[in-house]
Amino acid sequence: MSRDKAIRARAKAVIPGGMWGHMDVAALPAGYPQFFASADGARVRDVDGNEYIDFMCGYGPMILGYNDPEVEAAFRLQHAALEIANGPAEVTVDLAETLVELIPAADWAMFSKNGTDATTACVTIARAQTGRSKILVANGAYHGAAPWCTPRPAGTTLEDRAHLIHYDYNDMESLNRAMERAGPDLAGIVTSAFRHDIRRDQEMPTPEFARAMRRLADAAGAALILDDVRAGFRIDLGGSWEPLGVRPDLSAWSKALGNGHPIAAVTGNDRFRDAARQVFVTGSFWCGAGAMAAALATVQKLRRIDAIRHMVRLGGMLRAGVQAQADDLGLGLRQSGPPQMPLMLFDDDPDFAKGNLFAVTALRHGVYLHPWHNMFLSAAHTEDDIERALVATQQGLDAVARQFPPT
Amino acid sequence: MSRDKAIRARAKAVIPGGMWGHMDVAALPAGYPQFFASADGARVRDVDGNEYIDFMCGYGPMILGYNDPEVEAAFRLQHAALEIANGPAEVTVDLAETLVELIPAADWAMFSKNGTDATTACVTIARAQTGRSKILVANGAYHGAAPWCTPRPAGTTLEDRAHLIHYDYNDMESLNRAMERAGPDLAGIVTSAFRHDIRRDQEMPTPEFARAMRRLADAAGAALILDDVRAGFRIDLGGSWEPLGVRPDLSAWSKALGNGHPIAAVTGNDRFRDAARQVFVTGSFWCGAGAMAAALATVQKLRRIDAIRHMVRLGGMLRAGVQAQADDLGLGLRQSGPPQMPLMLFDDDPDFAKGNLFAVTALRHGVYLHPWHNMFLSAAHTEDDIERALVATQQGLDAVARQFPPT
Repeated sequence: MSRDKAIRARAKAVIPGGMWGHMDVAALPAGYPQFFASADGARVRDVDGNEYIDFMCGYGPMILGYNDPEVEAAFRLQHAALEIANGPAEVTVDLAETLVELIPAADWAMFSKNGTDATTACVTIARAQTGRSKILVANGAYHGAAPWCTPRPAGTTLEDRAHLIHYDYNDMESLNRAMERAGPDLAGIVTSAFRHDIRRDQEMPTPEFARAMRRLADAAGAALILDDVRAGFRIDLGGSWEPLGVRPDLSAWSKALGNGHPIAAVTGNDRFRDAARQVFVTGSFWCGAGAMAAALATVQKLRRIDAIRHMVRLGGMLRAGVQAQADDLGLGLRQSGPPQMPLMLFDDDPDFAKGNLFAVTALRHGVYLHPWHNMFLSAAHTEDDIERALVATQQGLDAVARQFPPT
Repeated sequence: MSRDKAIRARAKAVIPGGMWGHMDVAALPAGYPQFFASADGARVRDVDGNEYIDFMCGYGPMILGYNDPEVEAAFRLQHAALEIANGPAEVTVDLAETLVELIPAADWAMFSKNGTDATTACVTIARAQTGRSKILVANGAYHGAAPWCTPRPAGTTLEDRAHLIHYDYNDMESLNRAMERAGPDLAGIVTSAFRHDIRRDQEMPTPEFARAMRRLADAAGAALILDDVRAGFRIDLGGSWEPLGVRPDLSAWSKALGNGHPIAAVTGNDRFRDAARQVFVTGSFWCGAGAMAAALATVQKLRRIDAIRHMVRLGGMLRAGVQAQADDLGLGLRQSGPPQMPLMLFDDDPDFAKGNLFAVTALRHGVYLHPWHNMFLSAAHTEDDIERALVATQQGLDAVARQFPPT
């Protein structure tokens, strides 16, 4: 029996279902390992000693590479001096200053632990500032796992979502309808950096849609809230909507901020500063100084090495290579979203049978892809990694072409 | 200008109000440092180099001493191998097994980052299992900072608390009334390990009240939820209600579990296992392996060294010593709660003028007390620390007696 199987059996006894949340591989095809032993750079190793070039990056946090030496050195130094006490360490202020300097929309920052902490705080701050209740969110968008936003209704009440009004991403008409429904009670409009809902093609926001959101929020005196948890620091270090020239009032960050160290942040502009102060948000470890130092080192290194350019270039290499392979085989493959956050979906694949076969074949050839969740490039990926990955994707596409011959 | 003052000025520019949450010292008397530089054992040092014997323990997390060598060694080993990947490390299962073995009420465990994550998950699991909505909570109790439970209403909506019904701790009549109001829609009863609301005397649950809660929850088919976030691992390693012989269905843990490393847990019995599996709760860092290893080492060491006995004994020494000092001076001082989680309140002190003077005087003499929040002992405190602390408390009590002469 494999070690993974043995640990899964033990896990099943003491963890409901054997695992919880987004890292439960129950929804992935058989063959995906559940438990990991080590990680370094762009490589992860499972508990059975199989090594993979990793294109999930821990579902986002890993942006400079697992175990990045600069980040780890900064973490160790701070952690040894002070992790937690009865107040924060100075590095908390250093990090807030750095984010305010880096992010044009930000006049201030606050820190927490989960992306959900940050999105929830944004909504609460918007309500506190406006004295209103209604929040616009896009259909199908993921903004966290709290009762107000979890994608699975089990255990939630209707009241948890009483003040949510839905629109469709990039659909002006639906946005206008949602605005009308909110009327004078609109507190804020929440948007993801781009449409990265699972199991469907990704979609960048059109500049018109982004600008309309800003205009509508302004006209209503409501907050424009950018959920940059998943995409943050991979599109633009100043915020994922900087290239669009649209600045949110409040932004939620997490994942890549600490290169794997647990941290989340809310940044906001001066209009929402007083409200941010009134709202009581806190957690026992929110001042954890090690993660602050790690985040500071991460942000500084991302900037110094122009990591985004690297990720865009290598993501582009992967995308072009895979597309050429699919085209050669006559397979209908759709790639969407920014190349540094790739998603690959097959035509005529309603149950993801093709996607699963593709991904699991690549996995057997040492490359960790995801069949229906967006993937992530990192600064640690090399051209050599992409070339090796393309050997595995060729195997995966060949398998798909054999089992589902193109007509 | 002091370094603390200089950093506060910088913080004010980039963090709303200069600090957020429970570690904002704005509510404490002038003289309390906001920023800390280092911590070791039972000592914290502020950014101006002042050292204090610490009786807040980071508001609870520090239970074995800051920078405990065993915990840190376990953390480092795991963190270097694997912190985060696309799935958890084996240590996640080791920790779940250890908690299930240690905690008689627990058949399973799940991990997260904040106490709020854990209390919220308990409520959600109770609702999922029962298919009902109403949750009983005690007036004034703190169960976290999410909109459903935050003590400050700013930014919350009425719907966030639509299904909460309040009772008074240790008050059977109010509990019965709350049960009646919930009727057949009762999902769960939430209780703290003991009454540790800020700014008032602490109160242990009477055995009758605890047993009644268990009986009423059973009769209604609802969950008894123990919020052991603050008290967990300081009263009884098997859960704070083990000495009462009352076992909850679901328990929320955090703070002391990882000796300062960010982790929270939900444990539950088999009746709630399926519901725990249905509920979608997750966070980017919830599988963070370093904190799991730290928690495992913490729990093992707490057990091995019988840390609770030590904390009870030293807490008792501090309590007896302070009481003798107050009695000698004729000062009315009330000490409440378990001695390892002490609270000291003065008679006739509605605005905490006496408490503030007492605490800030002790602070100037190198002992970090809190005037109105329960404090915490740790395994790192020594008899010598208590003796030194008693020198400082004598100074504090003398100052109170001078400024507020007993009549």
